[in-house]
Amino acid sequence: MIIQTTAGTLVPGSVTLVGAGPGDPDLLTLKALRALQTADVVIHDRLVSPAILALISPQARLVDVGKEGFKPSTSQPDIHNAMIMAAQSGARVVRLKAGDPGIFGRLEEELDALDAALVPWQIIPGLTAASAAAAAIGQPLTARGRNGALTLLTGHDIAGFADQDWRDLARPGAVAAIYMGKRASRFIQGRLMMHGAAADAPVTLVENASRPDQTIHTATLATLPATAAACEGPAVLLWGLAPRSFRASLHAQVLEA
Amino acid sequence: MIIQTTAGTLVPGSVTLVGAGPGDPDLLTLKALRALQTADVVIHDRLVSPAILALISPQARLVDVGKEGFKPSTSQPDIHNAMIMAAQSGARVVRLKAGDPGIFGRLEEELDALDAALVPWQIIPGLTAASAAAAAIGQPLTARGRNGALTLLTGHDIAGFADQDWRDLARPGAVAAIYMGKRASRFIQGRLMMHGAAADAPVTLVENASRPDQTIHTATLATLPATAAACEGPAVLLWGLAPRSFRASLHAQVLEA
Repeated sequence: MIIQTTAGTLVPGSVTLVGAGPGDPDLLTLKALRALQTADVVIHDRLVSPAILALISPQARLVDVGKEGFKPSTSQPDIHNAMIMAAQSGARVVRLKAGDPGIFGRLEEELDALDAALVPWQIIPGLTAASAAAAAIGQPLTARGRNGALTLLTGHDIAGFADQDWRDLARPGAVAAIYMGKRASRFIQGRLMMHGAAADAPVTLVENASRPDQTIHTATLATLPATAAACEGPAVLLWGLAPRSFRASLHAQVLEA
Repeated sequence: MIIQTTAGTLVPGSVTLVGAGPGDPDLLTLKALRALQTADVVIHDRLVSPAILALISPQARLVDVGKEGFKPSTSQPDIHNAMIMAAQSGARVVRLKAGDPGIFGRLEEELDALDAALVPWQIIPGLTAASAAAAAIGQPLTARGRNGALTLLTGHDIAGFADQDWRDLARPGAVAAIYMGKRASRFIQGRLMMHGAAADAPVTLVENASRPDQTIHTATLATLPATAAACEGPAVLLWGLAPRSFRASLHAQVLEA
């Protein structure tokens, strides 16, 4: 079967799931920007940066599902209800997610809910944080002779990560981008060392990737848990990568040795 | 050590390595668009779409390093020389690459060459093709209860992909995005089957992802080589994913059964 898909503009009564990218508003896609400017309702996560929310049409109603009252976050069913009710009222609804909605974005659950309610939807992909984090340290995520494959994983799902996966990642030259990995850093360290990774193998934590307060923390596997504890904002953990020495880079300054 | 990096505008005498995204000009980032509009020289790959090249400032000099005369492509050293000579002439140079320059983009080799010539550089990340391909079939690249990790790999490096990697990918629920995998499809099929993957496991090839001629080819592991042979344009092979049934999706039309 061959299917052709076409990207659409916002349609009343539908939900457009939009990737906001890593945080820098200049790393929004043109398509995402247009969606923010034409939406009637924008339902957004806590991780979406204020600079991006500022681009939303002033006529739009903003719904923050990242936190509500004293609760740490809105439940997934409440997010589903908010999307469905807004769409059923005839609004052009944007569901705005940090990064790429398809990468650790709980997209499947939201599409299931929209399908069950017969609410039409479309997806606008976004730049995932790993791409911005790697660019910030001047490193490609893949390189000939080093790693021909790249693994993306999340600290939240790490319990389901099998021993053979850790064995792969423990090999010299392996590279992984670990999202939401700060709390799991001691566990990650333990598994990688158990499978033979060197204590001095590089790990770099990119905190607030692409934002004005972006901070790059260099570490080794040995120092990873202590370095992760020093990160306050959201961070991407780049396993196997140290920042490039930036001999000629325009965009690096060493702030603290 | 903590390093802070800041993203810059184009500077005369420097090279900005820019991700063009998967092909749809609306999937350029705002930062990439601005770079294209202010560059004096743009050195681009063959895979960058004409619709994106049309956005480049008419004053800019375009250098196509995707093909030259009767040769299939310019050699990597010639690309390095073109970048270095343009920068040393004082131009604001953009090196425009399809997708994200850090993912299967030979970025490391180009940074090494720029560093060796003491040419300043910076990186603007781009949307990688896997994100656009997955959005086109209505599937997240990761999903709770299915795959907590995602592998990106390339058909070009597949010979270096170890047996244990294939064993991981052969497990039910595993998902991988394979770039430039068409020619390697019979090899990929063989390895996955050898490690126990089911013949009816889904594979989807997204040809010309995000472009007007985007075509989605659904296959199984059994039919993968024949399906790949029918793809003419560049394709991302999504192992482990079938298109969502699109019950309520706005952007799908079944063209051919």
